[in-house]
Amino acid sequence: MNIQTDRTSFEARLRKIGDELYHDKHPFHILLHSGGCTIDQVRAWVVNRYYYQSRIPMKDAAFLSRVEDPNLRRIWRSRIEDHDGREEGTGGIMRWLKLAEGVGLDPDYVASARGVLPATRFAVDAYVRFVRDMPLLDAVAASLTELFAPAIHEQRIAGLLKHYDFANDDTIAYFKHRLSEAPRDVAFGLGWVLDHAQTAKEQDAAANALIFKTQVLWAQLDALYHAYVSPRHIPPGAWHPEEGLL
Amino acid sequence: MNIQTDRTSFEARLRKIGDELYHDKHPFHILLHSGGCTIDQVRAWVVNRYYYQSRIPMKDAAFLSRVEDPNLRRIWRSRIEDHDGREEGTGGIMRWLKLAEGVGLDPDYVASARGVLPATRFAVDAYVRFVRDMPLLDAVAASLTELFAPAIHEQRIAGLLKHYDFANDDTIAYFKHRLSEAPRDVAFGLGWVLDHAQTAKEQDAAANALIFKTQVLWAQLDALYHAYVSPRHIPPGAWHPEEGLL
Repeated sequence: MNIQTDRTSFEARLRKIGDELYHDKHPFHILLHSGGCTIDQVRAWVVNRYYYQSRIPMKDAAFLSRVEDPNLRRIWRSRIEDHDGREEGTGGIMRWLKLAEGVGLDPDYVASARGVLPATRFAVDAYVRFVRDMPLLDAVAASLTELFAPAIHEQRIAGLLKHYDFANDDTIAYFKHRLSEAPRDVAFGLGWVLDHAQTAKEQDAAANALIFKTQVLWAQLDALYHAYVSPRHIPPGAWHPEEGLL
Repeated sequence: MNIQTDRTSFEARLRKIGDELYHDKHPFHILLHSGGCTIDQVRAWVVNRYYYQSRIPMKDAAFLSRVEDPNLRRIWRSRIEDHDGREEGTGGIMRWLKLAEGVGLDPDYVASARGVLPATRFAVDAYVRFVRDMPLLDAVAASLTELFAPAIHEQRIAGLLKHYDFANDDTIAYFKHRLSEAPRDVAFGLGWVLDHAQTAKEQDAAANALIFKTQVLWAQLDALYHAYVSPRHIPPGAWHPEEGLL
C-alpha cells in the first residue's frame, strides 16, 4: 500500500469509529433532540455537561504543558481561548452558563459543579489524565471526536429550537460558536494525526485513543440516563430536581 | 498582629528572599553585566538560558491545567502568549533566538536544545515538575522571582549595550519586553499570594517555594560558571566553543 492510499484508508478508519461509536446515537441525545426530555432532564444534562466543558481548557493546558514546539503550542492555545474567552465574561464556558440560566438554573450553582454525577467526574477526569499522560499522538487523536461534532450541533440547535421554550439565540449561542470553532480545530488535529501516525502501531494507538474518547462521551450519557430518565436512580449527592434553581 | 501588619511583614519576608538569594548576585551575572565575559561565555549563556525560556510556557500551561477558575486561567494565559507569541514569528522565545543570532549562533542549533548542560535541564525540569505537582499557592509563589527581574534586566540592558558589540535594539529586545511584561505579571502574582497565604503554614510554604525558585536560577549559573569560566570543565555532550555557529 503506498503512503497516500494508507493515509486515505487510515482517515476512513477514524471516521468509521465516529459512525459507529459517537454519542449522537445515544438514547439520551435522541430523547433530547426530539423534544422528549422534561425540563428536569434538560437541567440534569446542563449540570453534568458543564463539568465536561469546564475541564476542556484544563485538558488542553495539560497538552500544551507537554509540547516543546512553540508553534504547535500557539495553534493549540486557541482552543483554550475559545473556552475561557479573550476578555472577562466571554468564551464557551460563559456561554454554557447562559444556557444554564435559560433553563432556569442558577449559574453559580452550575459553576460550582456541586451535584455533578460521580460517573461524569470519573469519565471526564479520565480524559484529562489521558491527555496529561499519554503520547502526544494519542492525545491529539482523542480530540478528533470533533470530526463528528458539527453534525450533532446542527441537530441539537434545530431540535432545541423546535421543541423547547427556553431555546433562543442567547441560550444556544454555545453550540452556534462550536459550529465554526470545531471544524477549524479538527482540520488541524486531523492533519497532525495523519502526518504523525506513520506506522501500523501508531495508527492503532491513534484509533484506540479515539475509541477511548467516544467512551468518555458515551459513559457520561449512560450515567445521565440511568440517573434521570425514568425510572430515576439518582445517586446520593447528585443534583435533584428543584435544586439550584434561579 | 493584625491582618494588615501581617500582610505587610509577609511581603517584606518575600522581598528579603530576593535581596539575599536572587541570581543578580551570582558571579556569572557580575561577569556578564560588567563586560567580563568572552563571546564564548556569552554564547554558552545564550544556549543554556534558552532552555529555561523554552520551558516557561510549558510550566505555565502545567499551572493552567490545574486551575479550575476560568478567570484565573485567562489572566495567567497572557504569560504563555508573551513567550509563544500571538502570531507566528512573535513572542519572547523568538526574541531570544534573535539574541542567539546576534551573538553568532545558529538559531536552529539553539532551538534544538542540543548542547544544553545536563545540570541546566535538571534545574529547569525540576521547576516545571514543581509547578505541575505542588499546591497552586506554592506554584504562584515560585513565580515571584519576577519581583526582582526588572532590576536585573535594567542592569543587563545597560551592561550589554556598554560592553558588547553584538548588543543592539534587536538583540536585546527580549529584555526590553520583559521590563513591561514582568511587572504586570508579578503585580497579579504577588497580590494572589498575599491573599491566599493566610496561615503561618501557608506563608512558610510560599516563602519556601520562592527560595526553591531562586535555587533553580542560581544552580543554572553555577553549572555555567563551572563549565565555561576558566578553568573550563565542559561536561561530555555539552556545547563547545565553535559549535552551532552561524
